[in-house]
Amino acid sequence: MLDTVLLWITKNEKRWLADLKSWLAIPSVSAQTEHDSDTRLAAEWVADRLGALGMRAQIISTPRHPCVLATTPDDLCASDAPHVLLYGHYDVQPPEPLDLWQTPPFAGEVRDGQLFARGASDDKGQVHAHIAALTAWREIDQRFPCRVTMLLEGEEEIGSPNLMAVIREHAAELRAARIVLISDSNQFAAGVPAITVGLRGLVYFQITVTAANSDLHSGLYGGAVANAANVLVDVLGKLHDAQGRVTIPGFYDDVQAVSAEEARMWKTLPFDEADYLRGLGLRATYGEAGYSTLTRQWARPTLEINGLTSGYQGPGAKTVLPCLASAKVSCRLVPNQDPRKIAAAFKAHLSGLLTQAFGAAAQIQIEELGAGSPPALTPTDSPAMRAGARALEIGFGTKPIFMRDGGSIPVVNWFKETLGLDTIMVGFGLPDDHIHAPNEKIDLANYYAGVRTVAALYDELGRVLT
Amino acid sequence: MLDTVLLWITKNEKRWLADLKSWLAIPSVSAQTEHDSDTRLAAEWVADRLGALGMRAQIISTPRHPCVLATTPDDLCASDAPHVLLYGHYDVQPPEPLDLWQTPPFAGEVRDGQLFARGASDDKGQVHAHIAALTAWREIDQRFPCRVTMLLEGEEEIGSPNLMAVIREHAAELRAARIVLISDSNQFAAGVPAITVGLRGLVYFQITVTAANSDLHSGLYGGAVANAANVLVDVLGKLHDAQGRVTIPGFYDDVQAVSAEEARMWKTLPFDEADYLRGLGLRATYGEAGYSTLTRQWARPTLEINGLTSGYQGPGAKTVLPCLASAKVSCRLVPNQDPRKIAAAFKAHLSGLLTQAFGAAAQIQIEELGAGSPPALTPTDSPAMRAGARALEIGFGTKPIFMRDGGSIPVVNWFKETLGLDTIMVGFGLPDDHIHAPNEKIDLANYYAGVRTVAALYDELGRVLT
Repeated sequence: MLDTVLLWITKNEKRWLADLKSWLAIPSVSAQTEHDSDTRLAAEWVADRLGALGMRAQIISTPRHPCVLATTPDDLCASDAPHVLLYGHYDVQPPEPLDLWQTPPFAGEVRDGQLFARGASDDKGQVHAHIAALTAWREIDQRFPCRVTMLLEGEEEIGSPNLMAVIREHAAELRAARIVLISDSNQFAAGVPAITVGLRGLVYFQITVTAANSDLHSGLYGGAVANAANVLVDVLGKLHDAQGRVTIPGFYDDVQAVSAEEARMWKTLPFDEADYLRGLGLRATYGEAGYSTLTRQWARPTLEINGLTSGYQGPGAKTVLPCLASAKVSCRLVPNQDPRKIAAAFKAHLSGLLTQAFGAAAQIQIEELGAGSPPALTPTDSPAMRAGARALEIGFGTKPIFMRDGGSIPVVNWFKETLGLDTIMVGFGLPDDHIHAPNEKIDLANYYAGVRTVAALYDELGRVLT
Repeated sequence: MLDTVLLWITKNEKRWLADLKSWLAIPSVSAQTEHDSDTRLAAEWVADRLGALGMRAQIISTPRHPCVLATTPDDLCASDAPHVLLYGHYDVQPPEPLDLWQTPPFAGEVRDGQLFARGASDDKGQVHAHIAALTAWREIDQRFPCRVTMLLEGEEEIGSPNLMAVIREHAAELRAARIVLISDSNQFAAGVPAITVGLRGLVYFQITVTAANSDLHSGLYGGAVANAANVLVDVLGKLHDAQGRVTIPGFYDDVQAVSAEEARMWKTLPFDEADYLRGLGLRATYGEAGYSTLTRQWARPTLEINGLTSGYQGPGAKTVLPCLASAKVSCRLVPNQDPRKIAAAFKAHLSGLLTQAFGAAAQIQIEELGAGSPPALTPTDSPAMRAGARALEIGFGTKPIFMRDGGSIPVVNWFKETLGLDTIMVGFGLPDDHIHAPNEKIDLANYYAGVRTVAALYDELGRVLT
């Protein structure tokens, strides 16, 4: 049966392309209010498609952009078909700067086998692969191999402010799923399909150092009283040692070493550091001594200054002694670091550094922004993960690798914490898809292979999860 | 005659206030090009006033903001009247941050006997005291007690890039002066008038650290490549040791110790550290270990961060790895430090710190803003210095003290080096005037006493210098 489905998918490639282009033509830019009606239109577009497939699709309003929730009626799958939850998003990043696009961002032009459009890779194209695959199953077998629930949000690119409430509201229904699927990630490289099994966690802080009650003249007061910028730089400068390691006591205590098997697999990856540096305009990498670039990126925790502001920042010279200096600082966390424990250690250490060096001459405030998110690492030996690997091999003709992503996808934690569900991340993007940048594209060969992969994945899951 | 002049000054106080406010209303912010026409307007305003006084005033163009040069025609002073050069500046610091001003920075509001405006104390208000005093002499005696030349520049707050050229161009004329007067300094405290005999020098740097060719996602790249903000903080954080001493090799080599006599005089000053801290909203002073607060402020060199900017500085969290981080850093210098030697040592040390810690992973650019200025220290036993002391006693009713100023007035060195002239610094500001900060003000009682002092000073100089 799967062979017939796959064949039918290949025969209908032109149909999928035309259909995807009509969705990409709707500029569902969630960050820009002038596109609010487009965002709604994109939600309605996908709800219509899912309805046409036989699913029961509803549009769920939120204070900003709606979610689309679609479920599979009983007559569209076997009564014992396992329940799978697909999460994705139909909103896109702003297309600006427009003048850097070779063709208009919502025109969906194809050049050299690449489909160029905002959202082509992130994430409409990847969600659409699921719609195409389910269409194929419906066409050939009249029903789906799994009971599929789709939850598509319109606010991923603005931080998913309302998604958690929607998940909570529909928890009873969503909890019936056995696993979550997300296709919103990249392959390791062209020709190297991948399942993302690890994500880093995050804690984020706003730090403010205050000294005098106003900015002072650096001549009249310089040397006599604390300068908030000097103080901030002094304490932040002490958070790393000469080896690039974070100096917060206990910071590395719970860090789980990369398993021998993962390390071995990463060594086989086609990672060309010279190429990587060229792409970033850099002459050398930098980070914690003793670890490879990929390991630092995927499996080592960090402490990064995300923003600095103090004193005079305009043109020319101003001889001011800033009374205020602030920084945004965040830590990426890896298994098994606990965001709560790290946040507490961070605050205690930084406050201690200030008091030790400056006594009562300056004050520091450290506020945590957001609740933090824990790191995630999914075991690779579960039946669902093995099903994902087989599906990718069927879709792409190549055994996939298991890799990690250095970023954080908060919704993965929300599904785990709220619904108790693990997530499988099977993505079809490529690192050079220019997501969040001008000339976003998806490689059409990857997209079609993605449709076949998803068709096989539902088939595999339908068998192994029962 | 002086008594009549002083009486007339006191009777006309309202007139001086209204006139000063109309000058302060012109936002002559030299650092901001959008105010270039205002800066020109402020120059024209004062040239008009000096012309109305009977002086010959000309506006001298420079590549940026003009100078105003006004001379006293023969019929406006005795033929043997000594020639005195007054230097001042009509430009002001940027008023930002605007939201911290209680009333608009150019409105010139009076509250509790204080006139609030950018430039009220630094330096329009103090220059205006000279205009008022000369007006009084003209009114009562039809002429000035000295042959006064005024040189007012519009670039003091941006490091006087063109003043030296103007001085050189007019050197023959300016060299005829016997002494330079500057009113651009503070009293020691309210009720403690002072002559400033020492100034610190200054070198100022713009520092830029660059890493990747664009800001990066802190999840995808964090830990793998250099973060420009981390790099900047690391190298700047190494510029002080735990004792608050600057770590640049050779930084203190040429520092001259305070003489026993100066040290003794400073100990007698009514310096109440608790009061000083209360005024600044601080709980403790901070600085180089082993020196008193006044000594650190007047006679020890510093290294201060005047501004910091990098990455995301808006509300909330953005997980960005900044590719650019910049800082403004300046050093105050004391006798006998050489700005050229210190600037070279600063650049070499900072570049070395970056290369040592980060190799080729990030780049640093260090640009010197302005030419730097050397420190100055004037002997206290000259006739002109004694005349200044008597004038202050007449204007304020209290014997003045000799003190230093931690700030820098580069022109003092230029007058000495180019024209061979000593400078007497008689200022009417107070330490809490908030110059270079929001809510700059001048105490009107001090301003009026300043007008009387200047009237007496020209009278004294007219006698002792002939």
